[in-house]
Amino acid sequence: MARRFAHSECTIRYSYSMSANPAAKFPDPARLAACARAIADAGRKLGAQGLTPATSSNFSMRLDDSHAAITISGRDKGTLTLDDIMVIDLQGRAVGTPAKPSAETLLHTQIYARFPDANAVLHTHSRTQTVASRLFADSGTIRLEGYELLKAIAGHNTHQTRIDLPVFPNTQDMPELVARVNAWIDGGKPLFGYLIDGHGIYTWGRDMAEAERHIEAFEFLLGCELDLRRLRT
Amino acid sequence: MARRFAHSECTIRYSYSMSANPAAKFPDPARLAACARAIADAGRKLGAQGLTPATSSNFSMRLDDSHAAITISGRDKGTLTLDDIMVIDLQGRAVGTPAKPSAETLLHTQIYARFPDANAVLHTHSRTQTVASRLFADSGTIRLEGYELLKAIAGHNTHQTRIDLPVFPNTQDMPELVARVNAWIDGGKPLFGYLIDGHGIYTWGRDMAEAERHIEAFEFLLGCELDLRRLRT
Amino acid sequence: MARRFAHSECTIRYSYSMSANPAAKFPDPARLAACARAIADAGRKLGAQGLTPATSSNFSMRLDDSHAAITISGRDKGTLTLDDIMVIDLQGRAVGTPAKPSAETLLHTQIYARFPDANAVLHTHSRTQTVASRLFADSGTIRLEGYELLKAIAGHNTHQTRIDLPVFPNTQDMPELVARVNAWIDGGKPLFGYLIDGHGIYTWGRDMAEAERHIEAFEFLLGCELDLRRLRT
Amino acid sequence: MARRFAHSECTIRYSYSMSANPAAKFPDPARLAACARAIADAGRKLGAQGLTPATSSNFSMRLDDSHAAITISGRDKGTLTLDDIMVIDLQGRAVGTPAKPSAETLLHTQIYARFPDANAVLHTHSRTQTVASRLFADSGTIRLEGYELLKAIAGHNTHQTRIDLPVFPNTQDMPELVARVNAWIDGGKPLFGYLIDGHGIYTWGRDMAEAERHIEAFEFLLGCELDLRRLRT
Repeated sequence: MARRFAHSECTIRYSYSMSANPAAKFPDPARLAACARAIADAGRKLGAQGLTPATSSNFSMRLDDSHAAITISGRDKGTLTLDDIMVIDLQGRAVGTPAKPSAETLLHTQIYARFPDANAVLHTHSRTQTVASRLFADSGTIRLEGYELLKAIAGHNTHQTRIDLPVFPNTQDMPELVARVNAWIDGGKPLFGYLIDGHGIYTWGRDMAEAERHIEAFEFLLGCELDLRRLRT
Repeated sequence: MARRFAHSECTIRYSYSMSANPAAKFPDPARLAACARAIADAGRKLGAQGLTPATSSNFSMRLDDSHAAITISGRDKGTLTLDDIMVIDLQGRAVGTPAKPSAETLLHTQIYARFPDANAVLHTHSRTQTVASRLFADSGTIRLEGYELLKAIAGHNTHQTRIDLPVFPNTQDMPELVARVNAWIDGGKPLFGYLIDGHGIYTWGRDMAEAERHIEAFEFLLGCELDLRRLRT
Repeated sequence: MARRFAHSECTIRYSYSMSANPAAKFPDPARLAACARAIADAGRKLGAQGLTPATSSNFSMRLDDSHAAITISGRDKGTLTLDDIMVIDLQGRAVGTPAKPSAETLLHTQIYARFPDANAVLHTHSRTQTVASRLFADSGTIRLEGYELLKAIAGHNTHQTRIDLPVFPNTQDMPELVARVNAWIDGGKPLFGYLIDGHGIYTWGRDMAEAERHIEAFEFLLGCELDLRRLRT
Repeated sequence: MARRFAHSECTIRYSYSMSANPAAKFPDPARLAACARAIADAGRKLGAQGLTPATSSNFSMRLDDSHAAITISGRDKGTLTLDDIMVIDLQGRAVGTPAKPSAETLLHTQIYARFPDANAVLHTHSRTQTVASRLFADSGTIRLEGYELLKAIAGHNTHQTRIDLPVFPNTQDMPELVARVNAWIDGGKPLFGYLIDGHGIYTWGRDMAEAERHIEAFEFLLGCELDLRRLRT
C-alpha cells in the first residue's frame, strides 16, 4: 500500500508497509508538508550563515506522538528541497521510504523522548562550534555567563544567569552518545544544548523559530567566548 | 474609537482610547508609515550584517513631539514588517495597541528627551560590540582616536579628535540604566553612543541615515580596536 | 548655457558655464555615462564586501585629457546611482555642477597626472586596511613578498617578487599628502598603491577591472599579513 | 573545418584543425555544455564565499578519455560564463581555440592521469589556504585529525582518522610542481588534495559535487587549525 500527498512546491512520497511497522499510523500530510518546509527554510538560513559546511548538519521536527521528519543523510543542508526530508518513527526507523535518515538520528529521537516540549531539533557544524568543542573538550563544559543574549535561551529573563553547555566526546557509536546525554539529564543538570568534540552543536525548541533562536544565540555566545579568550591572554 | 491607515506594503493598525491617554494626539499616519518603513529597512540591512542575532536589538524613530515608533518586543529584527512596529508616547507607554514595546524602551525615550535633534535611535548587538563591552567594562570607557572614520560621527571633521564611548554595567532595571546615562550627560561629557556590558550599543542620529552611519562607524572602530589589541600584544 | 544628456538608468546633469572654465571642453557624454556606470558597479561590489563603511571611500575614472568622473562627497558608496557621480577637471575643480567632489579629489587627479596609463582610481576603507595602516605607520611601509597573488598586480608575473606599500601619515591637508606621494614617486620607487595611517588604501589601474583586481589583491595580501603576524608570535 | 554547438545560455565555440591534432576526437557537445555549466556554477558559489580573489583560481572537468574543459586564464572566477571555459587535451594543449588555458593546466591534467576516478578538479585561493600554506611550508604537511568533518573526504567514515595535506614549495615552473606531486603519489602516500606555499589548494572528486564538498571541507578544517593555533598558544 502506498500513499502520496501533493504539495505546491514539490512532493514528499512515502509508501507505508503494514507488515514492517504494524502499530504505526500515518503522520498528518499537512503537518508533514509544513514541517518539511520549515526544515528546508531553516537549512537555507543556516547554510547562508556558513553553519552547515560540506553536507554536514541535520535537522528534524516532531510530527506527532510517534513520528518525526528528518533530513536524509548526505544532502547539502543549505539547498534542501522537500525531497531531501523523510519520515521516521520515534525509534529512529525510516517510515515508508527506503531512504537513509541522518546517521545521528538517535540523537534527535532522544530529544523528543526526554523533552516533551521540544518539537524541533537542529544540529549544525560551524567553525566556531568545532573549535570551541575542541578547546573545551578536556574540561567537559563551556560556562556561558554575563551575556545579555542568554535571555534568548528559553526560560531565561535576565543576564544574571549562567548556562553550562556540555562537550561530549565524539564517537560514531550513537547509543554511546545517547547514554552520555541521558547521564547528564539524569544527573539533574539543566540542558539547553550540547557540543560534541571536533563536531558541532545540538539544540532544540518548542518550534522551529525557537530552535533557530537557540542556534543563533549559542553560535554568538561561543564566538564571544573564543574572542575573549584570544583577547584576554 | 479606532483609527486605521493603509499603506502599500501592509497596514499598521492602532486603536485609540480617549480614556487611556486623554492628552495624547495621533501621530501623523504618513509620518508613521514612513518611519515604520525606514525602521524595517534599517533592520534588514543591519540584520544582513549580523548585528541583530536571535531577536536581539531594537530600533525607533521620533514621530512628533509626543510619540515615537518602536519595534515590538521579541521580533526578528532582520525581517521586520510594518506589523512589527508600534507607537509609544515619549514616556514609553504603548499607544493604541496591546502590543508590548521593547523592554529597553525607556533608553529610547531618554535619547529623545535629552537630545532634541535626535530623531532615530538604533540599538544593535553584534559580537564585536559584546566582546568590546566586556573587555572595557572595568575601565568604563573605550577611547577611539586616530581614525579617519571618526569623521563619520556627526560634528567631527578631522581624524585629530577622540571620542570616549562609555561602557555602562548591564542591568534589567531600566531606570537604573537611564540614571547612569543621565549622569554622564549631566557631567557635561559629550555622548554619541554607549555600550552596555555583555550587551550591545546605543547610538542615534538626526535621521535614520545618520543613525545608520553612526552604527556602521562604531562597529568598524570597535572592530579595529579589538584587532589592534590582538596584534599589538 | 546648460547641457543635459540622458541615460537609460538615470540622468547625469551638468550645466556648463563658459565664464567659469573658459578653456574646458565637454567630456564625451557616452564616455561619461559608461564611466559613471562602471563606478556605481564597482561601488556595489566593494560595498558588499564591506570595504566602504559609513559613506567612506571614493572612486573616479579618467574621462579624457582634461576631465574625470568622481563620486560626490558623503554618499553611500555601496548604493551609488549615476546621480552620485560628478565631473571634475584634472585640477580637481567641479565642472558644470554645484556638487562638491570628494574631499580627497586631489589624490585622484595626482594619480592621473603622474601615471598616464591610469584610468581608474579606487580608494576604499576596510577594517583590514585601517588596522594594517596603524600597525605599520611607524615603519612607513608594508613589504609584501612570497605570495602567488602578487601576480595580480599589473607588471608582475612571478611570486618571486616583492612590493613595498607605503603608509603615509594621515592629514586633512591634501596638498601635504600629495607632496608625500610625489616624493615617493620622485625618489624612483615603484608605486602600485598606498595606505594612509588610520584610513584606507589608494590604488588604480588601466581600467576599472584592473583597479578592482588591485583592490581585491591588496585587501587579500594585507589580510594575510595580519593573520601571519597573529599566528607567528 | 569549424564546429559549433549551441547552448541555451550562451555558446561555446571551438574550431577544430585536423592538421594541428590529427589524432584528436571531438568531445561530446552535450557533455561539454553540462561540464561548462557545472564549472560556472561552482565558480559562482566559491567566488561568493571569497575563495577566488582577484581572478585567481582555476577549475576543470574531465570530458572524455582525451579531453577536459578548463577555465580560460585571467577571468573572474566568480562570474564565469560558458565563454570563459575552453577545451584542452589531456596533455594540456588548447583544442580548437586560440584561447590560453590556465597557467596551471598541467596540474589539472596530472590529476586526471594519476586518478582515473577523478572527474573534476578545483583550485582555489582563499586567505585561510594561503596563510596555512605559509605557516606549514617548513614542515611540508598539515596533519588534520580528530574532526568529524574528515568524513566529508571521500573514503572516510569515521573521525578517528587523519589526513596529511602536503604543502609543496611554490614555483612558476609547472613540470617541477608536477614532479613533486608525482613523487608524493609514487611514495605510496594517500593524496586527497595539496597546498602550494603562498598560494592555494588543489583538490578533486568523482564529480563536481564531490570536488566542491572537498574544497568546503578542507577550507573548514584549515580554518579550524588556524583558530586552534591562535587559541592554544
